[in-house]
Amino acid sequence: MADRTYSFSTRIRNVDGGAINDILKASADPSIISLAGGNPASELFPGRELAEIASDLLTNQPALTLQYSVAQGYAPLREAVLKMIAERDDIIPRGDDIIITSGSQQGMDFAAKCLLNEGDKVLVENPSFLGALGCFMGYGAQLVGVDMESDGISVEGLQKALEENDGVKLLYTIPNFQNPTGITMSTEKRREVYRLCAEHGVLIIEDNPYGELTFTGEKKPSLKSMDTEGIVIYCGSFSKILAPGIRVGYIVAPAQIVKHMAEAKQANDTHSPMITQLMVYEYLKRHDIGENIQRMRNLYRRKCKLMTDEADAFFPTSVTHTNPGGGLFVWCDMGGDYDTIQVYNECIRHKVAFVPGAPFMADPSKRCSAFRLNYSTMPDEKITAGMRTLGSALKQIMG
Amino acid sequence: MADRTYSFSTRIRNVDGGAINDILKASADPSIISLAGGNPASELFPGRELAEIASDLLTNQPALTLQYSVAQGYAPLREAVLKMIAERDDIIPRGDDIIITSGSQQGMDFAAKCLLNEGDKVLVENPSFLGALGCFMGYGAQLVGVDMESDGISVEGLQKALEENDGVKLLYTIPNFQNPTGITMSTEKRREVYRLCAEHGVLIIEDNPYGELTFTGEKKPSLKSMDTEGIVIYCGSFSKILAPGIRVGYIVAPAQIVKHMAEAKQANDTHSPMITQLMVYEYLKRHDIGENIQRMRNLYRRKCKLMTDEADAFFPTSVTHTNPGGGLFVWCDMGGDYDTIQVYNECIRHKVAFVPGAPFMADPSKRCSAFRLNYSTMPDEKITAGMRTLGSALKQIMG
Repeated sequence: MADRTYSFSTRIRNVDGGAINDILKASADPSIISLAGGNPASELFPGRELAEIASDLLTNQPALTLQYSVAQGYAPLREAVLKMIAERDDIIPRGDDIIITSGSQQGMDFAAKCLLNEGDKVLVENPSFLGALGCFMGYGAQLVGVDMESDGISVEGLQKALEENDGVKLLYTIPNFQNPTGITMSTEKRREVYRLCAEHGVLIIEDNPYGELTFTGEKKPSLKSMDTEGIVIYCGSFSKILAPGIRVGYIVAPAQIVKHMAEAKQANDTHSPMITQLMVYEYLKRHDIGENIQRMRNLYRRKCKLMTDEADAFFPTSVTHTNPGGGLFVWCDMGGDYDTIQVYNECIRHKVAFVPGAPFMADPSKRCSAFRLNYSTMPDEKITAGMRTLGSALKQIMG
Repeated sequence: MADRTYSFSTRIRNVDGGAINDILKASADPSIISLAGGNPASELFPGRELAEIASDLLTNQPALTLQYSVAQGYAPLREAVLKMIAERDDIIPRGDDIIITSGSQQGMDFAAKCLLNEGDKVLVENPSFLGALGCFMGYGAQLVGVDMESDGISVEGLQKALEENDGVKLLYTIPNFQNPTGITMSTEKRREVYRLCAEHGVLIIEDNPYGELTFTGEKKPSLKSMDTEGIVIYCGSFSKILAPGIRVGYIVAPAQIVKHMAEAKQANDTHSPMITQLMVYEYLKRHDIGENIQRMRNLYRRKCKLMTDEADAFFPTSVTHTNPGGGLFVWCDMGGDYDTIQVYNECIRHKVAFVPGAPFMADPSKRCSAFRLNYSTMPDEKITAGMRTLGSALKQIMG
């Protein structure tokens, strides 16, 4: 029976999480120093406050907390989120609506389901977030990579991609502290990117999980705040500012798109759990989430500096790295013809893991000289030890 | 901007939740007596016990409860569920694996995503569960209805559908206390249905949300327990035996299928929230869920009898109804050329709602003389009042 072959859909056969899953699985081994993941620091989760809230809800409002609800999400939470992002990102709904999703990842998946036909093209920053690439490919989209520069996506590259490709439906971008590079798009580029997409009738998915994790407090205008044309699908999340395990995110997008996304959500999980939505809602009401965010900024700023200082001290000088102004990741590049899989194989022998760059690329089959490091998960001494092991491996391979 | 037209995917354009959503929305109005929904009785939710569990988890294991986890679900919960269904439904994994999903609805959606190409055919009981029909259509499947009889799906109809249709990929069935009819498939039919599907290489989605809600304690063998060929995808849920708002379900299916479903889940919501998975796990560990289920059986048995007694007393004698042995629904039929939309329109003027039969059909555009009633949600006096209003409307229309 185990040998029976099943005929799977073409869309799911496009998806291959193989290599990266093996890496993430390896790095779940507690004896490994993992600079591979993207987990927020669990020591900052407000467990005690959420315990009190959950207990209150289940004791005093069991029917609300445990009964079926609506696909679009708990209405008071929707309002609270709209208020929050109006203040934070200048996002004033103009013909927009909001849906609560189980993480912003789920919002992207439903947007993709509603918008993409097989063979449609999606422009992605090259490199970009793996989870998003997998989600677009899961609906049969073709990815077209546009190179990243130190101040965000290449505008020339974007223009060229828009001109040279038929059937471009979407641009997917993470303007703030991008995953995997840590790069932030400049304000000028944001205006240019918006203008070009509007001109070509291409929708923009603006994914902003890390925007609040700024080290300096500086913020650049969201693409959604410029959205006079109704082309931006804005994705936000509580994963990086409260806790990821509760899976609460949201999408603000033109009402017609949200309507179809709510149908997709109805068919998928009916609605996000009430307990998690209510926990977020009550947390926002009872506590100052800004204080929590400030603690994260302080911690990640310090850990990021620790990591980049170690890179400066122990990596070969020809290996470059980004200097993120926020977020969770540093992107390093050996340059030349190197393949970071080699470095990975050497490091994992010494029980240090990171993610080689290839899977983040629109074409993951090409060899890649870059790799991603995460500084939010490991304690300081493991970051130090891991960076030194990595430095030795790089030196050994680069001669 | 609100007038902009967006180009949606063909798959989502197939989905039209319009009519039924209007009915369910109308019945959310608290001044309406709603026999339309399918909500379990919220007075039986174990709020106090779950409050204690949630508080414990968030206080003592905040990292486990709030951090990212794996797509396939919390491993100890997977084991506990396998143990539970081995005892309950004789389901012994043979080349099978399990995935925790956000309700079994989500499991169906991922199964459909992994298995169905546009134009593939899915056989469905006629009538069947709306949420499942919507989910298959959301991946471009064509539905082929097979009539229901008083002891389950018509075996002759199934055989004919298998012989006359090319590209049949799946049969979707709810063998126990079916939604919307309340009908249970006989043991002989289960064996015949399994044999026919195995012979034609057609996979079976066996959806079993109501199996535990038996009024007599009698149980029939699950299709999965007969699955020597590895063709059954078994869907279970805690929605009807614990609480639906937590959204915890599971799928037991051949490991190759579960593997692809886990990829689909990774791309959709990464994983189900840890707090809800852990709440179910701890509830199963600390309490006897059987006691909870027994309370539900007692309540629903009584309410079902109340409803069918009222039907016998106040409906025209030519209106038939099923006599469910469990579950949440009664199915009534006016017979002849009647259209229950007419009855609905009359009842809603008197603030009583139910669901007309057409949307449950593989072809919802045909007029339908049947309708669905729910007895689990409303208090007794509202069931009584609602049934009398409905009886008057039926008499008025049938003359």
